[in-house]
Amino acid sequence: MNKLNVTARTKVNRLPDRASYDINVIYNILDSAFVCHIAFKIRDQINIIPTIYGRKDDTIFIHGSRKSRMLESFESGEDVCISVTLVDGIVLARSAFHHSINYRSVIIFGKPEKIKTQGAKEKAIQIIFNHFLPGRWDEIRKPDKKELNATSVFSFKITEASAKIREGGPKDEKEDEELKIWAGVLPIKTISYEPVRAEDLNKGIRLPQYLNKFRQD
Amino acid sequence: MNKLNVTARTKVNRLPDRASYDINVIYNILDSAFVCHIAFKIRDQINIIPTIYGRKDDTIFIHGSRKSRMLESFESGEDVCISVTLVDGIVLARSAFHHSINYRSVIIFGKPEKIKTQGAKEKAIQIIFNHFLPGRWDEIRKPDKKELNATSVFSFKITEASAKIREGGPKDEKEDEELKIWAGVLPIKTISYEPVRAEDLNKGIRLPQYLNKFRQD
Repeated sequence: MNKLNVTARTKVNRLPDRASYDINVIYNILDSAFVCHIAFKIRDQINIIPTIYGRKDDTIFIHGSRKSRMLESFESGEDVCISVTLVDGIVLARSAFHHSINYRSVIIFGKPEKIKTQGAKEKAIQIIFNHFLPGRWDEIRKPDKKELNATSVFSFKITEASAKIREGGPKDEKEDEELKIWAGVLPIKTISYEPVRAEDLNKGIRLPQYLNKFRQD
Repeated sequence: MNKLNVTARTKVNRLPDRASYDINVIYNILDSAFVCHIAFKIRDQINIIPTIYGRKDDTIFIHGSRKSRMLESFESGEDVCISVTLVDGIVLARSAFHHSINYRSVIIFGKPEKIKTQGAKEKAIQIIFNHFLPGRWDEIRKPDKKELNATSVFSFKITEASAKIREGGPKDEKEDEELKIWAGVLPIKTISYEPVRAEDLNKGIRLPQYLNKFRQD
């Protein structure tokens, strides 16, 4: 097991048995989602923005418009905080108190690093595509110089991070177990379904196989 | 249309045509999700935590363990930032640059207000239940004094907030439209499926109707 060092920021105090610092657990959660939330400061004002990301090895990549206030704020070099959350189910206990959510989540603390050359930017964007739409990059029209100039790309090392996982059924108080109340888990899943063709798409162009595969996940 | 005042914090600068300050739009998004991400500071350290919430009228309610570092930090009276995001689809354009996500999101800025009496706490917890599991509250064992004491509950007024929505198909450059590349939208949805009974659940207890209804959503 390859574990990250626990820091004051990543130490899970509440329900520490749900925590993991194993990089394989962390990578696995990161690879099962494609949207993260980033908390950052603009002139001491706290802010939060959802965005897509890609992971390769020990690095997360984020991209967006050069004019995005979030990406502009990253240039200050201040630490930000990234959260990835997968909701797997609602846990129904007999008591209100023991209701819960099954989830897998990761928190990463770190400094954004700006990716500067056009070549490195394009590589990072390719990683983001391969993360959220495997197979897509190979067939699309790649970004040109103007588009790359209009895009800011940042990387984050996954060195200060923790995962938290809750799974399984409800844990009721002994004295509640005999109550005549349904208890269990309502599983939740995010799925994709029937792709919708663009209105102006030439009729001869068929759905690429990687999208069919995506639907079966 | 009932619009919120736009403030420096809620003004959407990037792609302002996707923004809305209409409270009905904002409430509608809040009512379609049940997990939010909250960005907050602990001794100037930025942090982010996912949690469930409930909305009633112009108020959001959050609850959790009294020992939660996030809820403890709320007592400082500093502003926090709440984000709710629904991902509706991946938008596939002919060019890498014009790929996008269809989404509905809300950002709320505000000061958490602590709910103090046991009666008001229980009411707020009921609102959270009615938000994420309508029908459930009526049949479960309600929190007792000890459990209410162990629970912190906070409210946030939805007065400084904005929504951002992207919908529809890809918007490619004119010169890319003739490329032989599939374009369109891969719709994404979060669903619940076949409830799993708790292992120790008495066989005579049948699935409540409100869970059947939930599954059809």
